[in-house]
Amino acid sequence: MSDESQELGITESKSHKPGEWYAEVVQKAGLADYAPMGGFIVTKPRGYALWERIQDALDGWFKQTGVDNVYFPMFIPESFLEREKDIVEGFDPEVAWVTHGGHNELDERLAVRPTSESIIAPFMADWTRSHRDLPLRINQWCSVVRWEATETKPFFRTKEFMWQEGHTAHATDGEAWEEVWTRLDQYARVYEEVLAIPVLRGKKPEHDKFPGADTTTTVEALMPDGKSVQGGTSHHLGQSFAEAFDITFADEDEEEQTAYTTSWGLSWRALGALIMTHSDDQGLVLPPTIAPTQIAIVPIWQEDTMDAVLEYSEAIADDLEAAGFRVELDDRDERNPGFKFNEHELNGVPLRLEIGPNEVDDGEVTLVHRPDNEQSVADRDEIVDAVDEHLETVFTKLYDTAAENLEENVRTADTPEEIMGTIGKHGGYVKVPWCGDSTEEDDIKEKVSAEIVMQPVVDKGGRSAGEPERPPEGTECVFCGEPADQYAYFAKSY
Amino acid sequence: MSDESQELGITESKSHKPGEWYAEVVQKAGLADYAPMGGFIVTKPRGYALWERIQDALDGWFKQTGVDNVYFPMFIPESFLEREKDIVEGFDPEVAWVTHGGHNELDERLAVRPTSESIIAPFMADWTRSHRDLPLRINQWCSVVRWEATETKPFFRTKEFMWQEGHTAHATDGEAWEEVWTRLDQYARVYEEVLAIPVLRGKKPEHDKFPGADTTTTVEALMPDGKSVQGGTSHHLGQSFAEAFDITFADEDEEEQTAYTTSWGLSWRALGALIMTHSDDQGLVLPPTIAPTQIAIVPIWQEDTMDAVLEYSEAIADDLEAAGFRVELDDRDERNPGFKFNEHELNGVPLRLEIGPNEVDDGEVTLVHRPDNEQSVADRDEIVDAVDEHLETVFTKLYDTAAENLEENVRTADTPEEIMGTIGKHGGYVKVPWCGDSTEEDDIKEKVSAEIVMQPVVDKGGRSAGEPERPPEGTECVFCGEPADQYAYFAKSY
Ligand SMILES: [Zn+2]
Ligand SMILES: [Zn+2]
Repeated sequence: MSDESQELGITESKSHKPGEWYAEVVQKAGLADYAPMGGFIVTKPRGYALWERIQDALDGWFKQTGVDNVYFPMFIPESFLEREKDIVEGFDPEVAWVTHGGHNELDERLAVRPTSESIIAPFMADWTRSHRDLPLRINQWCSVVRWEATETKPFFRTKEFMWQEGHTAHATDGEAWEEVWTRLDQYARVYEEVLAIPVLRGKKPEHDKFPGADTTTTVEALMPDGKSVQGGTSHHLGQSFAEAFDITFADEDEEEQTAYTTSWGLSWRALGALIMTHSDDQGLVLPPTIAPTQIAIVPIWQEDTMDAVLEYSEAIADDLEAAGFRVELDDRDERNPGFKFNEHELNGVPLRLEIGPNEVDDGEVTLVHRPDNEQSVADRDEIVDAVDEHLETVFTKLYDTAAENLEENVRTADTPEEIMGTIGKHGGYVKVPWCGDSTEEDDIKEKVSAEIVMQPVVDKGGRSAGEPERPPEGTECVFCGEPADQYAYFAKSY
Repeated sequence: MSDESQELGITESKSHKPGEWYAEVVQKAGLADYAPMGGFIVTKPRGYALWERIQDALDGWFKQTGVDNVYFPMFIPESFLEREKDIVEGFDPEVAWVTHGGHNELDERLAVRPTSESIIAPFMADWTRSHRDLPLRINQWCSVVRWEATETKPFFRTKEFMWQEGHTAHATDGEAWEEVWTRLDQYARVYEEVLAIPVLRGKKPEHDKFPGADTTTTVEALMPDGKSVQGGTSHHLGQSFAEAFDITFADEDEEEQTAYTTSWGLSWRALGALIMTHSDDQGLVLPPTIAPTQIAIVPIWQEDTMDAVLEYSEAIADDLEAAGFRVELDDRDERNPGFKFNEHELNGVPLRLEIGPNEVDDGEVTLVHRPDNEQSVADRDEIVDAVDEHLETVFTKLYDTAAENLEENVRTADTPEEIMGTIGKHGGYVKVPWCGDSTEEDDIKEKVSAEIVMQPVVDKGGRSAGEPERPPEGTECVFCGEPADQYAYFAKSY
């Protein structure tokens, strides 16, 4: 390994120093840099390309299911923010305020949007006259700003972050529920089908809902370090926003009714989960579904074999490109193969093809899987099918490892001390029967920084809230001994 | 015409009150609404869909020509904005300032980006070490804020507007020029191929360049009301930003060199030009290249013919959709055909298919062009080819009308008075020989609000600035009588 490739390589250890390791992978794989203002990042081409793939997938599904994209102003007048009391209380402490336009002080301060319900709801009210105007489903891809004073962690904790926010209005509670579950399922699908990360689906506990929401549903992903990531949330807002902003409509009998609204969002935190889940001490690891480059072809030649090796490699690159794969033929002359191997590993290219004079002579190709370096040989003539299968195998390897981690890390506990002990020792989720008293998590929050991240719901997905998973008759709350009618998943979280 | 469709219809006249007419089309065709804060708009689904089509086209061309998308913070620290003096002078009076985060005053004010050179350039400096790192080409799709106190005109004049901003660094002046012209050509292509609007390409006069630029190039589109729209600009920034922000690199001999940079942007003003150019007193008119719905099928039935007409219409809709067209089958029962005709006209659907019992009996379809109501009949069996041809014809009609308007409205003048008289009478462009003295336009600016919007360049497009179009030897400046070495196009502009 040359000096230069050592400088390129990851020096921190994922298992020993996950925070430092994460920061190093993000920077050295060219995903993001830190901006000069604390709390902000610059998303570089390779990082932004990942976000674009998530956008493409989700935006396509949104459009197939009746959602139109729109764009609302990035500023919200203070008086609008104040119209829904929970929103003010929830977001006021972390709003960035614009007070001056040019050299003049503004008459009314403008909030840089922390979320857009307060500016969107009045327009939904305006656009909703009759039951024929419902359902109304709009979405915007944008960034929001929340002035939290925590340590910056690219994609996980930044003052400005990119997301999409969907906002809908419906004639009935049942239709609103259907919407909530539809979006939550699409979020789960992004994680499971695009990012190769299995998730748990459920509700947030009452005391941890989105400000103003009746119910917040969530997909939660377990990271290898044992912490849970809130991967995306879909909120049933009930009628609180509709009442605050007058979203009413004439029903079929010309009677005025109040609508039910929902909102749902997925942010670039999904990229954080992606990086954290699969990557390793060699750098970024990406599933082929999202990798900007799926296949790196590295020709290995001496002077006398150069022409043959390059010609053979180019033909293979052409075949793979024609078949629709994203291929990079790395024929740089100034770099040796070892350097190239390391660089493509660092950048998370899922599959490497090595082609030397032996491969040319034998009409073969050597394939190497990024996650575990497993090596195999395929016939040149069947390279397209072989690559297709190997990419699928790489995806499965990544998904299975993450699924195994999740499966092995849902534990139970009989006492509060055991919850803390188990989370302290193993991380992961601890599932306990609970009575629903929100104060009972305080002690755990304080002592081990864990909290209830999710409550499981059964029979969800239709036009109702679904039923909480119920403990067997006679089960006692792990905290107070009173009858427990629900389960709580405790975990540390990002 | 029912009362309801009258309420839907456009009441203002494009030729008599273009401003009011424009505002009415924008709102009634569902493109945008006014936000509660003066100067801001809400882009509604049909408006945003148009912007998405422009994005798709341009983003595809950018990626084919070596541009990577990125995302930089929406805020720029005041001290960064101050590093390039022309940028400060140019933008400081119209910056929106964030002064508070939550309940705390910030140590340093943050500008909401009016353009991002000042935050991007330092990173370009960081990423540019060697000549191998060049060219560096990045782009972001975002919104910017400029606190101008003028009357709001959706897509033309808003305090926040959506755009893309490209930023590049190059090893040589010639490569930077090549970049400048490549982007200007892509902007011209968006206008000419997607929006059906011919444009003039040239340079802005020296005194009207982008702050800090060596040269600003522009595409200009002539609106039917005789005013010019600056459709997109591509700036050669020379070495001023590279010097201010230290964008240097080691050349092949390991000598440190200063890079050349460019920036280029196209905003949603393109939508303003689109609406203004083609639309009429019936509402929006869109070329099929950008129309979210290209074809509206309106079945016309009585009770006894309903099944046959609907079945026939559905089969045609299926055929057209399968062929890749964007089709809406308008089978609403509660609306009569006349209402539907008006509504699709208002919304700018390029082609209407009318299908009644006669069409079913004769195995035919009636087609109506949106721009001029031209009606024709096609065989059912050849409907896919027929629609394809008719859509092309609609595009050509729109393009040709706009091209004719442009052609007829470039005039010349021999005196300053004649410039003013011609612009007052006809609008359009007045092309005059000019000596280059920037003060000479002051009088015209003051008296008829016209100015130099463009100067023609010949032999452009390669690795050079191109040659200004030169008047014949001995031509005198229309203002001062001194020798004129260039031409100036005067016009009123948006
Ligand atoms: Zn309890
Ligand atoms: Zn002169």
